[in-house]
Amino acid sequence: MIARLSTLFVRTLREDPSDAEVPSHRLLVRAGYIRRAAPGIYTWLPLGLRVLRKVEGIVREEMDAIGAQEVTFPALLPREPYEATGRWTEYGDGIFRLKDRKDADYLLGPTHEEMFTLLVKDLYSSYKDLPLSIYQIQNKYRDEARPRAGLLRGREFIMKDSYSFDVDDAGLDASYNAHRAAYINIFDRLGFEYAVVKATAGAMGGSKSEEFLAKAEVGEDTFVRCDNCDYAANVEAVQTRAPLAIDAAGLAAAEVVDTPGAETIEKLVAFLNAEQAQERIWTGADTLKTLLFTITHVDGTTEELGIGVPGDREVDGKRLEAYLGEGIEVQLFGAADFAKHPSLVKGYIGPKAIIAEGIRFLVDPRVVDGSAWVAGADDHGKHVVSLVAGRDFTPDGLIEVAEVRDGDGCPNCAEGALSTARGIEMGHIFQLGRKYAEALDLKVLDVNGKLVTVTMGSYGIGVTRAVAAIAEGTLDEIGLCWPRNVAPYDVHIVAAGKEAEIFEAAEALAKGLEAAGIDVLLDDRAGKISPGVKFKDAELIGVPTIVTVGRGLVDGTIDVKDRRTGEATAVAIADAVASITATVNSR
Amino acid sequence: MIARLSTLFVRTLREDPSDAEVPSHRLLVRAGYIRRAAPGIYTWLPLGLRVLRKVEGIVREEMDAIGAQEVTFPALLPREPYEATGRWTEYGDGIFRLKDRKDADYLLGPTHEEMFTLLVKDLYSSYKDLPLSIYQIQNKYRDEARPRAGLLRGREFIMKDSYSFDVDDAGLDASYNAHRAAYINIFDRLGFEYAVVKATAGAMGGSKSEEFLAKAEVGEDTFVRCDNCDYAANVEAVQTRAPLAIDAAGLAAAEVVDTPGAETIEKLVAFLNAEQAQERIWTGADTLKTLLFTITHVDGTTEELGIGVPGDREVDGKRLEAYLGEGIEVQLFGAADFAKHPSLVKGYIGPKAIIAEGIRFLVDPRVVDGSAWVAGADDHGKHVVSLVAGRDFTPDGLIEVAEVRDGDGCPNCAEGALSTARGIEMGHIFQLGRKYAEALDLKVLDVNGKLVTVTMGSYGIGVTRAVAAIAEGTLDEIGLCWPRNVAPYDVHIVAAGKEAEIFEAAEALAKGLEAAGIDVLLDDRAGKISPGVKFKDAELIGVPTIVTVGRGLVDGTIDVKDRRTGEATAVAIADAVASITATVNSR
Repeated sequence: MIARLSTLFVRTLREDPSDAEVPSHRLLVRAGYIRRAAPGIYTWLPLGLRVLRKVEGIVREEMDAIGAQEVTFPALLPREPYEATGRWTEYGDGIFRLKDRKDADYLLGPTHEEMFTLLVKDLYSSYKDLPLSIYQIQNKYRDEARPRAGLLRGREFIMKDSYSFDVDDAGLDASYNAHRAAYINIFDRLGFEYAVVKATAGAMGGSKSEEFLAKAEVGEDTFVRCDNCDYAANVEAVQTRAPLAIDAAGLAAAEVVDTPGAETIEKLVAFLNAEQAQERIWTGADTLKTLLFTITHVDGTTEELGIGVPGDREVDGKRLEAYLGEGIEVQLFGAADFAKHPSLVKGYIGPKAIIAEGIRFLVDPRVVDGSAWVAGADDHGKHVVSLVAGRDFTPDGLIEVAEVRDGDGCPNCAEGALSTARGIEMGHIFQLGRKYAEALDLKVLDVNGKLVTVTMGSYGIGVTRAVAAIAEGTLDEIGLCWPRNVAPYDVHIVAAGKEAEIFEAAEALAKGLEAAGIDVLLDDRAGKISPGVKFKDAELIGVPTIVTVGRGLVDGTIDVKDRRTGEATAVAIADAVASITATVNSR
Repeated sequence: MIARLSTLFVRTLREDPSDAEVPSHRLLVRAGYIRRAAPGIYTWLPLGLRVLRKVEGIVREEMDAIGAQEVTFPALLPREPYEATGRWTEYGDGIFRLKDRKDADYLLGPTHEEMFTLLVKDLYSSYKDLPLSIYQIQNKYRDEARPRAGLLRGREFIMKDSYSFDVDDAGLDASYNAHRAAYINIFDRLGFEYAVVKATAGAMGGSKSEEFLAKAEVGEDTFVRCDNCDYAANVEAVQTRAPLAIDAAGLAAAEVVDTPGAETIEKLVAFLNAEQAQERIWTGADTLKTLLFTITHVDGTTEELGIGVPGDREVDGKRLEAYLGEGIEVQLFGAADFAKHPSLVKGYIGPKAIIAEGIRFLVDPRVVDGSAWVAGADDHGKHVVSLVAGRDFTPDGLIEVAEVRDGDGCPNCAEGALSTARGIEMGHIFQLGRKYAEALDLKVLDVNGKLVTVTMGSYGIGVTRAVAAIAEGTLDEIGLCWPRNVAPYDVHIVAAGKEAEIFEAAEALAKGLEAAGIDVLLDDRAGKISPGVKFKDAELIGVPTIVTVGRGLVDGTIDVKDRRTGEATAVAIADAVASITATVNSR
């Protein structure tokens, strides 16, 4: 087909939109692919819709290829199923809720676990009906606190979500692996760099879980990879390589020392290095930093929690959130909290007082039994040196919330070092297990005629987000630069000049390519639009092959340029259709 | 492609769903095409989704063919544009409203006039950019008071809505006519009987307006057709063929007569025929029935309205609603209203007292100047005979709200008679004119460099509703019966028997047809499912061609049946692929 820029509903902009934080957002708006309708809510213009449909098509093909069957659920959903699983409350402010004219509660679906589970319960009753994988490509809604980065974090967006139903764990593994393989095909075909990383399951519950992250500086997710083995994980899911327990036998006794004014780790370390015997240099890693939080559960109940981490590491907010689970609020101790616990001396709090106060105290895995620490002595201006875990204090358990850093040891191969990178979450696959099936009572008869609870998997791809991620991963300093598989058109022909012959030749070439099955965007704009403006628009719009019909025409040639490399070749007009078709089909 | 019933996500039901009011709803649920998620809100199962996508495809092709360009707007929309045009209020309880976490108002879009207008304003600025037609196929939301009939009146549904933008009325006419032609193509291809009727524009404002109605007994719309010319109109839009004004010169003077107890039209007519000189037989059509209403406008202000219609006709609620406009409430006078007007004698109210009380009094077009009526005499137990319009009372104007009946005169040819029928509104095209462009300030520079307000058209098709309307118009007593163009599959093969050869032959035939580009639904269910059950399912599901591979196999034949006519032919297995392919492609 041929689309003509003289009539195509598009306007390219010279100026960046004021609310665009990331390059893909800026360029998708400037090149006329999308338009903001409200914060985090976008309209798709014809160019954008073509890319979106191609991404959807690739996702659909690969889902169909593993035997998943397409359905479509409504976006407007009744409250009851989400109440049954607790998600109506857990989502907090994160979902859009509304009432109908009869005052019944509804929500705009954030994901559809409940609805899929109930549908299968409604239709199926026997192990013979399983395994089953069903999916939809459909509008989702989340009331994000900070919708940002255009399509990367929207409030209305398209997701492919699929769900697998199996009678046993082996079946779930097979369904999970089929989806994993399909996702690899999808992301390979979409044409951007990505990593598959271990993930936490978050609000979804469940066990095995991996994320597909597009590598991107603007990503909101941090992930790590090992330089020695194939370990990769979302930072929330990283397990610390903890040292082995140490025999405390030969260690010095704990000793309280005066550390006047050493209320921060930095001051404490400086003080120790200045005052203590100099056979060692003290660092933050020798100190135990304690933090106290008030946690509010989704049911409104509160709990106090103490956390101990090596003094050279911060508590990572995202890791803490992932540890606690969705919807749980966390607040550092304030004056009122300290007032309830007079034995806690701010700036000098140690494990002993926390434990004595009956506050649950969890420590970083590095705080193994036998490890010795400098910690607060629970007395103003004093710390305790050689405070040994397991000997001088016993924490209530471990917690994985300390920040992960480049160079940290790999928990998998125990030899490699981790490096961190940023990414955009493009897909998430996880084994839900029986959580939803139990909550909604989805059982089938097994081979022995006994009712068994079905085990489920849940698999999502951000489809609108993928458009932005592909744009982000492929753009350059002059504009968008689409991979062939998702480009809105195959070829962009620029009629460069004012002469009628140029327009006629461009039109004839477009028709020749159309007849060869090539989708053409033809810049046939007449009037005052200069060739320079047309070239700039072509670069901005980012169709992979740009053909110029212009001055070369007198010599019987046109100019064929690769948008990515910028390499241009003069091609005889007689060979143009064959040559360009070959280029397009070589992909 | 081949879909296999052994794995297809579908369950046919023997029982009708309890909430299904119309045959199409009953069968679409029983045959496993859709499933209710909430009142008026449906999930599309694989079979239904295939039909839906085919309908969408036909709509898209015909819209593209007239140069309309596809975009997609969000469903979740900000309040402000709808506030600017007044629709935020006018829709009353009919739209879903919600707030986001920042307490900003949103709605789920019922139609997108405002958003399209603002988008064009955002991108375009010159007459050179026009004409433009843009469309979307997208989820719409209306909080219907009585969601009924399955997909025929849903609360979440898919519409194709398009909008045209022109600089002048001639342009609007051309855009309107292009859409009208496209709609005729679409409804012809969808394969059901329909009528194109004149319509009122309802809440959309504007002038020229036509509806495409699928003929169906279960339809909520009534329309009329002339038996002499091509006039057809929605009942709300019917103009009464009014008689010419009569010269009042020779008419008798108005005379008050005692009509004790004649508080209804029937009693009055009986009384007149018993008491008056018998040179004529009085009927209800000789009497003038007066009705008094309190009208509440969308801004909350109220108004009193008197209506006079011939006594043999009711006021049609839908025609009154269409006359008053969307969101306006209307209530018959109650005791409190009469208390405000002591001169109005209930049961004996005549035009004179209504007019004397200062209440606006509108009459049916049959009440022409010079026509004589029996009306209430504004005195208990009395009527006035030979009360002549224009002589004895002067109404404030005309109103088209009297019921329309079979046999009423055609307003177009003035010779034919109207007959009424019921239909389902499938499409609505109308000339909005400048209402939205003015409200949202959409102007472009004209050829003289002067700013002019753009004129718009609005064109809708109920896509999910079309699926139900097609089903409704084509089903028979044994099940659904799809037209070829929208059938979920081309051929339904039943493997009828237990022998392995039968399953092998059925599978081989399916593969042969697949290779010929035919979409096959193969009933390969083994086990206890009898051929009888399989045939019943095939009839219920309604694929146009049903092929049985069974007993005939020993003679080298299969059975090819037309689902609609029931005609069956034995076909040699060797010729089966060619023969069935020819049948499918003959359409």
